[in-house]
Amino acid sequence: MQRADYPVFYPILTRWMDNDIYGHVNNVTYYSYFDSVINRYLIDEGGLDIHDAPVVGFMVSSSCQFKKPVAYPETLAAGLRVLRTGTRSVTYEVAIFREGENDAAAVGEMVHVFVDRSSNRSLPIPADIRKALELIDSTA
Amino acid sequence: MQRADYPVFYPILTRWMDNDIYGHVNNVTYYSYFDSVINRYLIDEGGLDIHDAPVVGFMVSSSCQFKKPVAYPETLAAGLRVLRTGTRSVTYEVAIFREGENDAAAVGEMVHVFVDRSSNRSLPIPADIRKALELIDSTA
Amino acid sequence: MQRADYPVFYPILTRWMDNDIYGHVNNVTYYSYFDSVINRYLIDEGGLDIHDAPVVGFMVSSSCQFKKPVAYPETLAAGLRVLRTGTRSVTYEVAIFREGENDAAAVGEMVHVFVDRSSNRSLPIPADIRKALELIDSTA
Amino acid sequence: MQRADYPVFYPILTRWMDNDIYGHVNNVTYYSYFDSVINRYLIDEGGLDIHDAPVVGFMVSSSCQFKKPVAYPETLAAGLRVLRTGTRSVTYEVAIFREGENDAAAVGEMVHVFVDRSSNRSLPIPADIRKALELIDSTA
Repeated sequence: MQRADYPVFYPILTRWMDNDIYGHVNNVTYYSYFDSVINRYLIDEGGLDIHDAPVVGFMVSSSCQFKKPVAYPETLAAGLRVLRTGTRSVTYEVAIFREGENDAAAVGEMVHVFVDRSSNRSLPIPADIRKALELIDSTA
Repeated sequence: MQRADYPVFYPILTRWMDNDIYGHVNNVTYYSYFDSVINRYLIDEGGLDIHDAPVVGFMVSSSCQFKKPVAYPETLAAGLRVLRTGTRSVTYEVAIFREGENDAAAVGEMVHVFVDRSSNRSLPIPADIRKALELIDSTA
Repeated sequence: MQRADYPVFYPILTRWMDNDIYGHVNNVTYYSYFDSVINRYLIDEGGLDIHDAPVVGFMVSSSCQFKKPVAYPETLAAGLRVLRTGTRSVTYEVAIFREGENDAAAVGEMVHVFVDRSSNRSLPIPADIRKALELIDSTA
Repeated sequence: MQRADYPVFYPILTRWMDNDIYGHVNNVTYYSYFDSVINRYLIDEGGLDIHDAPVVGFMVSSSCQFKKPVAYPETLAAGLRVLRTGTRSVTYEVAIFREGENDAAAVGEMVHVFVDRSSNRSLPIPADIRKALELIDSTA
């Protein structure tokens, strides 16, 4: 995956703790980058209120291909796009780029379902969020 | 996946920080459980020396299916098995179980390649580690 | 500090990610041990409901002395005591012990105030929690 | 503490996982901000090589005063200064500021000693690092 594949980018500042004993960002930590970027988009563009909204996004699956290592103190860029917007779920792709590189260092895929915050029952994607998702849906 | 599918188990003590704003263990954190369990097995049974060994395991891909939420302060159990032992890579499956439950709350799959610590070049799996992996390889 | 100084103990299972690039548990991570142990005690012994209780404990200060390094995959023990129970705040001490050692590897001190969950206004410590705190208050 | 008290600033991008179940950045996470900022300064200005340098900085104590909550997805600023440069140790102060605010939301103090990477024995602060520390030593 390359930078041109993604309509939206967010900066990622690596942290000291992101590096593991082998001196690179731990595989686990990439998922925290994905999570932060996706929710940031939903908050900024879809009006998601993570504190009080009655509908919340729950991750049902995630995966990542790690192509080359990155390490603190690098500044990274995360590209985000939507691969599929269903009625109740959405599939995101997030790619992590090192500064000055055009090929992704890692590419993740994540599926959110939207559920009622108190009952945990699945719900249709709220209209404002759907609108935001469609803006970056590569198949739309 | 059920408990009977796994030959080895490790306890997982959840931490306060594992819960996110929605009150459940964050999807990212499951991968830290997987990572800890796999390396623990390699250290205990395969003699992996994470401080000084010339060969280290690098994650090239990972994925997880989240089936039901878990939350701090629960104590969880992680079942581990090997799905495929290649010459230079191994595929693990780790399942997370809530106390008293037989169906997994989450199931992850991870692929390790073994590389030379200084050159990052791929190497055959060291003999002691291979022996340990074959002990829990469900296809062996 | 020594084991005999603490009335309550909890096990800590280190995780792969706890080690930083220098091969030891990162200084930050000790605070996640402290946090987990304190809240575990409040939940188990004081009936704290972290999901729905109208009163929550907020940390106003914390500190730690790091005496000797610990590292994944060690299993640690955390000793907990209360140093001071005020009307609206409590000071905890948590000590981290390596297996088979009597002198603490690290000792932390933390101050909780109790606040109304929605208004963030400070409140007297709830009666059930106060009772639990007094049980392990070394000055009581 | 106020912005004018600090000679150097770094941006902090909060992450989804930084928020705990109470909806604010967990007290533990502030220490990861401190750690990242301090090492970033040592790397950028003092030439610290965290991968291969024979001398490493070990944290011997840390503390934090939490004055007001911050939360993901806020962007924060961290101000850094040195309070005391000894022969073998240095005391840092890091303050966390919310966007548009002049009073710190949290203030931390940390003490690094410098040790030989293999023997763990304490060493004088390396000359290049000392020079960098003196540049931001508020008492110098």
